[in-house]
Amino acid sequence: MESMNQSTAQKPRDHGQESKSHVLTLPLESTHVDRSPHTYERWLIAKLMRMAGSPPLRFRLWNGDVIEPDGQQSQFALHLTDPKALYALVTNPNLAFGDLYSAGRLEVEGDLPDLMETLYRSVHQARQKWPKWLEALWRNHNPRSTGISEAKENINHHYDLGNEFYRLWLDSAEMQYTCAYYESPELTLEQAQLAKLEHVCRKLRLKPGMTVVEAGCGWGGLARYMARNYGVKVHSYNISKEQLAFAREEARKQGLNHLVEYVEDDYRNISGQYDAFVSIGMLEHVGKENYEALSELIKRSLKPDGIALLHSIGRNRPMLMNAWIEKRIFPGAYPPSIGEFMEICEHGDFSVLDVENLRLHYAQTLSHWMDRFNENEDKVTAMYDGHFTRAWRMYLAGSIAAFRAGSLQLFQVVFTHGDNNSLAQNRRDLYAFPAAPEEA
Amino acid sequence: MESMNQSTAQKPRDHGQESKSHVLTLPLESTHVDRSPHTYERWLIAKLMRMAGSPPLRFRLWNGDVIEPDGQQSQFALHLTDPKALYALVTNPNLAFGDLYSAGRLEVEGDLPDLMETLYRSVHQARQKWPKWLEALWRNHNPRSTGISEAKENINHHYDLGNEFYRLWLDSAEMQYTCAYYESPELTLEQAQLAKLEHVCRKLRLKPGMTVVEAGCGWGGLARYMARNYGVKVHSYNISKEQLAFAREEARKQGLNHLVEYVEDDYRNISGQYDAFVSIGMLEHVGKENYEALSELIKRSLKPDGIALLHSIGRNRPMLMNAWIEKRIFPGAYPPSIGEFMEICEHGDFSVLDVENLRLHYAQTLSHWMDRFNENEDKVTAMYDGHFTRAWRMYLAGSIAAFRAGSLQLFQVVFTHGDNNSLAQNRRDLYAFPAAPEEA
Repeated sequence: MESMNQSTAQKPRDHGQESKSHVLTLPLESTHVDRSPHTYERWLIAKLMRMAGSPPLRFRLWNGDVIEPDGQQSQFALHLTDPKALYALVTNPNLAFGDLYSAGRLEVEGDLPDLMETLYRSVHQARQKWPKWLEALWRNHNPRSTGISEAKENINHHYDLGNEFYRLWLDSAEMQYTCAYYESPELTLEQAQLAKLEHVCRKLRLKPGMTVVEAGCGWGGLARYMARNYGVKVHSYNISKEQLAFAREEARKQGLNHLVEYVEDDYRNISGQYDAFVSIGMLEHVGKENYEALSELIKRSLKPDGIALLHSIGRNRPMLMNAWIEKRIFPGAYPPSIGEFMEICEHGDFSVLDVENLRLHYAQTLSHWMDRFNENEDKVTAMYDGHFTRAWRMYLAGSIAAFRAGSLQLFQVVFTHGDNNSLAQNRRDLYAFPAAPEEA
Repeated sequence: MESMNQSTAQKPRDHGQESKSHVLTLPLESTHVDRSPHTYERWLIAKLMRMAGSPPLRFRLWNGDVIEPDGQQSQFALHLTDPKALYALVTNPNLAFGDLYSAGRLEVEGDLPDLMETLYRSVHQARQKWPKWLEALWRNHNPRSTGISEAKENINHHYDLGNEFYRLWLDSAEMQYTCAYYESPELTLEQAQLAKLEHVCRKLRLKPGMTVVEAGCGWGGLARYMARNYGVKVHSYNISKEQLAFAREEARKQGLNHLVEYVEDDYRNISGQYDAFVSIGMLEHVGKENYEALSELIKRSLKPDGIALLHSIGRNRPMLMNAWIEKRIFPGAYPPSIGEFMEICEHGDFSVLDVENLRLHYAQTLSHWMDRFNENEDKVTAMYDGHFTRAWRMYLAGSIAAFRAGSLQLFQVVFTHGDNNSLAQNRRDLYAFPAAPEEA
C-alpha cells in the first residue's frame, strides 16, 4: 500500500523458491460438486463462526444449502464452491480466506468492504477471549527479512507490475500510493492527495532555499510538489528504475531539474545533511530490526534545527501483519505501534513534536482507489488474469475494512533533535488556509 | 509542578521517618573558613568539571581564590563557602547542588536559569560518554511508591503550603499549576493559562450537554472553564480539602453549581461513563506501576465515542527524575517517555489521535512564575524561611533550564477507544480563532 524506496505492491504470489508465476497455491477447482454436506461439515461451519465471534453471515454451500447464523438477519453470504474450500478455511482461516476468494472458490454476496469490516470487528472482539491454541491456529506471519538484498528482490518483483497498472486507479495528479488527506470529506482523490503533500510540507515548515532528503519517493510526486511550491532542493532516494524514469521525466517537463535530484540508491546510503528528512509510506517495510539503524541515519542526515517526518501505517498495539497480506501482497511488511515507533525516536534522543492519526483518511483513500480499480477491472484482467484481479480486489476491500474497523492506523510523526529550540510557536500555521487546491 | 489530585509541590524536606520540619540535611555552616585550598581540592574541581563536560563556569572558593575553566570565557561563577561543600558536591553532585544552594553554601553569580541550562546541556553531552561507575555516582532516585496511602501522605504534606503561597506567583485567572499555552509569545501568564484551558476543551471536542470527568483538578479552574464556556457537566476528583473548598466557593460564586461537581476522592475511585476523560498534570505522579490500572479506569469511564486527554511532563527516553527534585520537591514523580506513555494506550487498545509537545511553553510558563516568585521573595521568606525560598528558586530555575535544554518535555496526548469512528475530520477547528482571550 505504501512504497519501499519504490512501489511495493506486487503480484500476489507464493514467494520463496517455488513459484515465479502469480498463480496462488489454491487453484480453482473446476470439478463440480453437488453432494449434500455432512453433519460434521455443518458442525465445522458453526464452530468457525463461533470462533469468529458469530458475525451476521450466511453460508451457501456447494449444493445450494444455506446455513443461517443463529437468530441474526444477515446482509452478507459466503458461498463455498467445494468441500475442500471449507477444510482450507477451517484449517487456516486467516490465509485461506483471501486465497479462496482469489481462486473463485469463495464468493461473496453483499458489499465486500462492508463484509470485511463486519468480519474484522467480530474477530477482533472474539479474539480477546481466544485460547492460546486458537491464536496459534490464526497464524499471522513473522515478516520476511528486509535486508538490502531481500528488499531489492521485493522491489524487482513489484516493479514488474509497471506504471500502467497503477495509473488505472491512483490519482492522476501525482500518482500517490499512500494515504491522502481528506481535509474535507467531499474532496476528490486528486485534491486529497495534493492536500496530503501540502500538509506534509507545512509540518516540515519548509522555506525557500532549504534542503530536503526523501527516503523512498515512489513516482517522485512529493519532491516535485516541494520544489514547485516551496522552492526547496530535494534529494529523493529510490531503487526502482521505472519509477525513477517517470519521476525524472516529470521533473524535466516541469523545469524542476535544478531543484530535484532523484538518486537511484537504497535509502540506507543517504549522505549529506538536510533541513528536513521525510519518508512517506516506507517505515512499514523497514522492519523493526532496522529501526536503530534508521534512527542513526536520520540523526546524521538532519541539520541541528532540522525536522523529520515519517508517515506510516501503524497499529494500536504490537501485532503481526495479517498473514494473507504479508504472504501475498506485502512480504516483509510490519506496521508498528507508536510504542514500537518510539524506538526510532528514543534511540536517537529525538524530541517528538507532533503525532497525527489519519486512519479514516486511509479508508477513504482506499475506497476511491477501489472504485477506480473496479471500473478498470477488465483492463486489469487483460493485463494479468482474473485471479490477480480478485486478489487485488480482496486486498483493497480488506484494507478499507481494516482502517474502518481500527485494526490499522495511519500515523504522521514529526520529530527533531532533542536539543533543537528552533520550534514553531504552535500548529496554527498548518491550518492557515486550505491545504487542498480548489480543483485538481 | 503538576498536580496529583491536588497540588503536589511541597516544602523541601528530607522525607521519610526522620524529619518533620523543612530543614534540609545540609545546614548552612556558619563557621568562617578562609584557609587556602589544597592541591587535591583544586584537582577535585578540575575532575568535577571534566565529568560535567567542561561547562564555562568559574569556581570561587572559600578564601577568594578563583579557578577559571580551561581556555573559556565564563559569564557564570559558583561560589563555594567551605571545603565540606566541595566534598558534598564531588560525592553526590546531583543531589548536593540543590541542597548546597538551598543552604546558602553554594552561591551563583550570573542568571540562575541560564547557568542551569548551560549545566544541563553540558552534562547531557558529557553523560553519553560516562563510564558506568559515574552513572552510578550520579544517583538518580527510583521514585517513591504512589499507592493510595503514600499518595495521600504526599498530598497532606503539600497541602500544608496552602493556597496563599501559590496565589503569590500563579496566574490570577484560574490558579493553574501546569504548563500554559503560549499561542503567541507575548501573551501574559493569565492569557496563556486561559488559552491552555481553551486548547484542551477544543481537543476534547466538547459540546453543550456533554459530560466530563477530571482526574486531579487542583483549584478546579478547568472544570469551571468547561462549564462556563462549553455548557458541559463536569465531575472533578481531588483529595485536597483546601483546594476543594476554594474550587467549590469559586463555582458557587460563578453560579456553576448545577454543572460542576467537585468530588473529594482519589481518582482511582472514579465511577460512571463520560464523553471525555481529562487529566492535566497528574500522570507524572501516577507511577509506571499504576499505568495498566489507569488504562482500565479510562477504558470503563469513557463512552464508546468518548475522548481522553492526558497532559503530562515527559521525556525523550526513559530516565529517572532528577534526584534533588524527586527527593526535595516531588516525591514519587516520574515523567514518562511517549514509549512508556503508550503502555496506557496499548493496554486499553486505545487509538492515539493526537500528540503535541509544548516543551518551550513550559519554559515560558516557569519563567513567568519565577518572575512573580522573585518579586514576592520577602513574603515567601516571611511565610517559611530563607532556606525554603532558595530551594524553590532553585526548583523553578532548574525546571526552566530542563525544559529549555530538552531534558524535559510536555506532552498532550489525545486518544479514544480503538473502534470509535466518530472522529473529527481534521484538526483545523482547534485553530479556528485565537484560544487566548484579548485580555485576562
